[in-house]
Amino acid sequence: MTSYTANVRDMQFVLHELLKVAEQDVPGYADMERDFTEAVLDAAGKVSSEVLAPLNAVGDHEGCVLENGAVRTPKGFDAAFAAMKEGGWTALDCNPEYGGQGMPYVLNCAVGEMFVSSNMAFNMYQGLTHGAVSAIEAHGTEEQKATFLPKMIACDWTGTMNLTEPHCGTDLGLLRTKAEPQEDGSYSITGTKIFISAGEHDLAENIIHLVLAKAPGGGEGTKGISLFIVPKFLVNADGSLGARNAVSAGKVEHKMGIHGSATCVMNYDGATGYLLGDLHKGMRAMFTMMNEARLGVGLQGYAVAEAAYQNAVAYAKDRLQGRAVTGAENPGGAADPLIVHPDIRRSLMDQKSFLEGARAFTYWGATLIDRAHLMQDHEAEGLISLMTPVIKGFLTDKGFEACVQAQQVWGGHGYIEEQGMSQFTRDARITMIYEGANGVQALDLVGRKLAADGGKPLMAFFEMVKAECKAHEGDARMTPFTEALKVASKQLQTAGMFFMQNGMKNPNAALSGSYDFMHMMGHVCLGLMWTRMAKAAYTALDGGATDTAFYEGKIATGRYYMARQLPACSMHLTRIESGADPVMALSADQF
Amino acid sequence: MTSYTANVRDMQFVLHELLKVAEQDVPGYADMERDFTEAVLDAAGKVSSEVLAPLNAVGDHEGCVLENGAVRTPKGFDAAFAAMKEGGWTALDCNPEYGGQGMPYVLNCAVGEMFVSSNMAFNMYQGLTHGAVSAIEAHGTEEQKATFLPKMIACDWTGTMNLTEPHCGTDLGLLRTKAEPQEDGSYSITGTKIFISAGEHDLAENIIHLVLAKAPGGGEGTKGISLFIVPKFLVNADGSLGARNAVSAGKVEHKMGIHGSATCVMNYDGATGYLLGDLHKGMRAMFTMMNEARLGVGLQGYAVAEAAYQNAVAYAKDRLQGRAVTGAENPGGAADPLIVHPDIRRSLMDQKSFLEGARAFTYWGATLIDRAHLMQDHEAEGLISLMTPVIKGFLTDKGFEACVQAQQVWGGHGYIEEQGMSQFTRDARITMIYEGANGVQALDLVGRKLAADGGKPLMAFFEMVKAECKAHEGDARMTPFTEALKVASKQLQTAGMFFMQNGMKNPNAALSGSYDFMHMMGHVCLGLMWTRMAKAAYTALDGGATDTAFYEGKIATGRYYMARQLPACSMHLTRIESGADPVMALSADQF
Repeated sequence: MTSYTANVRDMQFVLHELLKVAEQDVPGYADMERDFTEAVLDAAGKVSSEVLAPLNAVGDHEGCVLENGAVRTPKGFDAAFAAMKEGGWTALDCNPEYGGQGMPYVLNCAVGEMFVSSNMAFNMYQGLTHGAVSAIEAHGTEEQKATFLPKMIACDWTGTMNLTEPHCGTDLGLLRTKAEPQEDGSYSITGTKIFISAGEHDLAENIIHLVLAKAPGGGEGTKGISLFIVPKFLVNADGSLGARNAVSAGKVEHKMGIHGSATCVMNYDGATGYLLGDLHKGMRAMFTMMNEARLGVGLQGYAVAEAAYQNAVAYAKDRLQGRAVTGAENPGGAADPLIVHPDIRRSLMDQKSFLEGARAFTYWGATLIDRAHLMQDHEAEGLISLMTPVIKGFLTDKGFEACVQAQQVWGGHGYIEEQGMSQFTRDARITMIYEGANGVQALDLVGRKLAADGGKPLMAFFEMVKAECKAHEGDARMTPFTEALKVASKQLQTAGMFFMQNGMKNPNAALSGSYDFMHMMGHVCLGLMWTRMAKAAYTALDGGATDTAFYEGKIATGRYYMARQLPACSMHLTRIESGADPVMALSADQF
Repeated sequence: MTSYTANVRDMQFVLHELLKVAEQDVPGYADMERDFTEAVLDAAGKVSSEVLAPLNAVGDHEGCVLENGAVRTPKGFDAAFAAMKEGGWTALDCNPEYGGQGMPYVLNCAVGEMFVSSNMAFNMYQGLTHGAVSAIEAHGTEEQKATFLPKMIACDWTGTMNLTEPHCGTDLGLLRTKAEPQEDGSYSITGTKIFISAGEHDLAENIIHLVLAKAPGGGEGTKGISLFIVPKFLVNADGSLGARNAVSAGKVEHKMGIHGSATCVMNYDGATGYLLGDLHKGMRAMFTMMNEARLGVGLQGYAVAEAAYQNAVAYAKDRLQGRAVTGAENPGGAADPLIVHPDIRRSLMDQKSFLEGARAFTYWGATLIDRAHLMQDHEAEGLISLMTPVIKGFLTDKGFEACVQAQQVWGGHGYIEEQGMSQFTRDARITMIYEGANGVQALDLVGRKLAADGGKPLMAFFEMVKAECKAHEGDARMTPFTEALKVASKQLQTAGMFFMQNGMKNPNAALSGSYDFMHMMGHVCLGLMWTRMAKAAYTALDGGATDTAFYEGKIATGRYYMARQLPACSMHLTRIESGADPVMALSADQF
């Protein structure tokens, strides 16, 4: 059996020593002093370890069952959901006007990381609701906000996002779900949506579906798409629940993982829907939520890996097998623990150096979202738009890889379902796919974001890296960080230049290297985070911090990342510079 | 639903144009003319597509069930097993003296690849038997051979290998299963073995367990281990089945994948066992089968990926989504097929260039095993010993990665179990673990094989690469191959030198880089194979071959591998040269 303990110490390090949140000029950040966030994180950690983690295997084992149109969630999910609501955990960063607690998004991310680590599938019910809340808050009428937000923020009602149809996922221009205007101003929604997380379940009184559909007169492709609110139960004027709407779950999918999350086929048979935002501007309404949703998936990628890593470490310390090549380290025992073996350490260091870098990167991204939302900070908005595909694509690829590595530490026992390590791998696998498959993230990055706003955000990022390296000139302790970062950053710039020089003539020359570029950029971002974290750790040590094992471990882990992970950039650059020819050489028949 | 069609064309290319098997001076190879192997491969391909592949999802879905001590295999497995026996497919390369067909091992590998691609779990019942047959043939008495081999080669009786115990996997010195000598010369075996594939099932009349156990007087650790034959039913003097032996399955494991393969906990409660080979020399008896068994697992790694790849290609050609960035390629349709997109091609080319290289590498390895076994070719023996951890470790890591990539092409549909793509990923995952986890393969390679026989096999390999590059000097068409291979091979040598210079002082300096070295060497081996295959393709084209699409595709795929995969060597070398410090810096508490 696996377990999970929130790494509050590291979260606090990132929030206060790396990001110095309480010193930032973002509305609400001044309240986030060290003691306050520690209290919140400790409390969330307790819920995660004691309430959510014990249900993780249960959810995986039982899954969700559709019977007579109703979906039964795994045993214990309802009580846990009630506990989450009661603890206020579903409303942490929501608008106080509608019952939220109004905390910054970055703190919600730290708490969310724990919930995902302890039970990713369970956390999706509230996670999806959070997304729908954001959409209604951004685009709803005052009446819509008053009707839906208080109930949804309390998670008495949950939310869904309905985009995908059987024949279209990424290419939403193909969608067929229809919205027919009715005399009362509502719309009649007809169509089939698939892969709808939390589409039907027994954890809430009502489910508020946000549905992309085509209303007449909008033109071809994505232009004709609008966004609609389609409640499972219609809501009366007094806020009470009315008639059952013509929407139902046709199927619950059997998936590779996240079994506790009910993934439904949803059938809309002339269901009543209400336009959310402007007619025919549904795609724009969707995109406003994209950065946050994709950051949330990137977070899932590394958060599941964090749980897997903790259990790999525990096993490596516990399992006795073989002897250290440099001499027995447990001479009284039958063998040494796995953790003495260099290759086990390599695997654990790969995981640890990724996870801690990913956490810093994600929280930093969350502060950019806070700045963009709360301060209309244009520069932060540009930067997070650029970073979003990297956070989503890179952190989920590497998070999955880390889960596989953690599972590998357990040897044959890692392959046995009741041990729990396989679940992490199976759960993490979806993060590479949903909310835009990672290849689509790479396309978004290279095809759209690099040149966005005249390339200003990209230039700002390179300047930021340059300034970071310059800031530590003369500090010999920082050289392993700044030198590696300079090399990798220069390689990234060279790759960008290659795209500019070749992509105009042949877009395939850029797109053939898009995936490699996304990974390169991920490494440079984590390299930047590690450089900053190393500096923060040295500062703490220089200031006489007593927790030396933590800070020295932080620096050593960072050095590992710079020495052994950042060199991947050189490989990615070589691949990118090979251009489109190797990739596009074959005719379709030759595959 | 997925499907599988054997790639006989490519297998024939490898056997006849790359390896030129019929021209080799190995006993039995002269019979392997092009028409003959094509007939065998076509017939095996038909069985694979029509009998085995349709049962693949069935096996995954139903799994194996233990009831009252008996294990029920999935529906249809029994009829398929009977068909395999009847077709002679279980005995292809077995000794004709005992009913085998006496074909070379390399041909058995090609056929085995198909069986694994179409149904990996099903194929394990005969695969494990094959391993046990080899052990009994190599170490058994004449009486043991006469008693067991004919029945096992016919697969009327199947075999197992019992190594692992709950507290020991890699470190067999810890094992506790006891063998007490009896008055009649037999032994009484007592202990618990875990992860025993095909330990109990309903496909055969009898199951012949080969069990590692400790008999008195052998000393500590692995020295005291002997190998025993423990039949499920004792065998009477006339060959008929006698009493039930005291061995039983205590549990069937629920695993991440290969559900159709019954993985059992086996309890030996004073079971009657017969010594196989010399007393206290059980480890040596095991090791003689290691090269073949590990090559078989490496083959599984890429063979499952071959099936996944075929289904990824089919989906990429069929699924309409988005438009080619260079202009619509399917203007009459609602969208273009996925295969027009560069990043989808990158993924498919990664898979294809790996798979075809892996096939060549594995069959080449099989010819080395044939040379070693049939001709006592010492050089071939040394070379295959060196290559074995690379075939096992590199091909299974990359095979799993290829399965994940193939699954990714299917987007969200790849995560839904009934579509079948998830199964490939889940099945392939075990190949990285069993028969020595890949970290152990890396340890074997760097800690044992590099310096084996005074380093002669390693030197022979480098000379072989050098000679290959030299052979194509002046042939400009071959330059992209030879230049890339030279660079990678030199990097591999540099890594080897680093180990020699630093490993003596500090073994951790070598072992910290062992995993990277294994991957580097895998890339160099596949680079060598691609260089040879490119030459073979040019030779065919120069000779006026009409199948130009095949040969040109082969060359283009090889160029992709050299341009986009081989550069990984540079990254691995940088990691290796960072030495032990980054890997070993933390104390166990700091994880």
